[in-house]
Amino acid sequence: MRVVKSVVEMQHEADRLRVEGKHIGLVPTMGYLHNGHLQLIEQAKRMCDAVIVSMFVNPTQFGPKEDFERYPRDFERDKSLALRSEVDFLFNPETKDMYVPDYGTYVEEQEASHILEGKIRPTHFRGVATVVAKLLNICKPHIAVFGQKDAQQVFIIKKMVRDLNFDVSVFVAPIVREADGLAMSSRNVYLSPEERANATVLHESLKYAEKKIKDGERNVKNLQSQMQQMIRSKGAPSVDYVAVIDPEMFRETDTITKPTVLVALAVRFGSTRLIDNALISTE
Amino acid sequence: MRVVKSVVEMQHEADRLRVEGKHIGLVPTMGYLHNGHLQLIEQAKRMCDAVIVSMFVNPTQFGPKEDFERYPRDFERDKSLALRSEVDFLFNPETKDMYVPDYGTYVEEQEASHILEGKIRPTHFRGVATVVAKLLNICKPHIAVFGQKDAQQVFIIKKMVRDLNFDVSVFVAPIVREADGLAMSSRNVYLSPEERANATVLHESLKYAEKKIKDGERNVKNLQSQMQQMIRSKGAPSVDYVAVIDPEMFRETDTITKPTVLVALAVRFGSTRLIDNALISTE
Repeated sequence: MRVVKSVVEMQHEADRLRVEGKHIGLVPTMGYLHNGHLQLIEQAKRMCDAVIVSMFVNPTQFGPKEDFERYPRDFERDKSLALRSEVDFLFNPETKDMYVPDYGTYVEEQEASHILEGKIRPTHFRGVATVVAKLLNICKPHIAVFGQKDAQQVFIIKKMVRDLNFDVSVFVAPIVREADGLAMSSRNVYLSPEERANATVLHESLKYAEKKIKDGERNVKNLQSQMQQMIRSKGAPSVDYVAVIDPEMFRETDTITKPTVLVALAVRFGSTRLIDNALISTE
Repeated sequence: MRVVKSVVEMQHEADRLRVEGKHIGLVPTMGYLHNGHLQLIEQAKRMCDAVIVSMFVNPTQFGPKEDFERYPRDFERDKSLALRSEVDFLFNPETKDMYVPDYGTYVEEQEASHILEGKIRPTHFRGVATVVAKLLNICKPHIAVFGQKDAQQVFIIKKMVRDLNFDVSVFVAPIVREADGLAMSSRNVYLSPEERANATVLHESLKYAEKKIKDGERNVKNLQSQMQQMIRSKGAPSVDYVAVIDPEMFRETDTITKPTVLVALAVRFGSTRLIDNALISTE
């Protein structure tokens, strides 16, 4: 495994791989790898000849009052996990090289970026789209692998790739959960033991929604209030949103009419914000 | 020469050229080729093994009241000119393929895009940056060639390429002028014979500015008022701006202090808007 810090060197390596006819897979991460990331890497390895894992805590996707500074980082641990997963390149650029002092160009998807997460984090998806565009231009992958846990991010990245004609396939891997159902996230380390125990309610509420929808519930308001009540019963966290989304257009819906809906939620336990979602077949 | 209309086919051809080790040059145009474009093509041919000329009148860089509909188009003439210039690929996509119905991702440089041209045409450079990003992802050039006539566009594209890490060199070719000094532009066909005769004052005013600066003029206000007076004496056109720019940062300046300045202007003769500029050494 090679650790590459330089943008130009990474582009050079990607060109070399492409001339050799190698299929390149990219797994973009912010580091602090958990089993969810390792599954993305496994997926990339199955589909590609060479796997690049990028590790970069991207400042432009954090709002001014968010957790950029305290976001968990442990490069040595990440490096040994990547080595054990037989990653070919670990791309770990410095912030000053990714964003030069007079940096000033952003990529923005203009519709889905402004609902749900985007309403609460107004510049988040602009930062995500921008850094992913940069990583695609630097690592030149044939396939980029993302996790379904960030469902809105996945939608926006797929749309950006289509709209800007990036010649890459976006592969979305399923959510990886702890034994008790909590979706894996680097931010789970922020949780106190009590919050950690209560946080299983996110997945439980999604399972509940799935059962209700399969049993015929079509009224989103009913579903939302039941899920919110269920979540709030656990240590009184603050619910940012519970939403039912048409996954084709990524728009909120009031009545369930489509064969598949995405139920997505964001909840704060103290200062820790967790998201989770489920794609639910209504038939 | 091959005419390619399909985005996927163009990407496939670009991949094939790259695997063969060929150096690809791209000349993005909106068609209605004039000698300025042909010089860009010649430049690309000197530097590259395969030259792609894109012809696409990009709707997103026109404002709602601008000349998108009446912009001059003559594909058969353009095709024979490209053939005569020994272009390898003419990429001529359809608008509906470049911008699908639910299109929604834009690339925006956020500083230089909002002065001069950007003040008068607020969404123009967002449209330019977006379509150039698309064309770079479709044609995958090693070198992209642009004309210095659109000096602000050149600055913004170079900045976008740097900021988003597009692995391409931007080459800027000098302005090509008619015998009487008028900068070549597809929009010159809009001019009436009288306007065409008066339009030479743009270049004359830039030559005047050059002389004044070489003679020691450092006050931009003086220079502007003299140039405006000179321009307005010719058939009373409307001056959108005359500006002196620091070409490193692309910011307007009041006093000339740098070894090189860009003097740029935009003038309307009737409904026809012309731009011109000169890079002037102050030493």
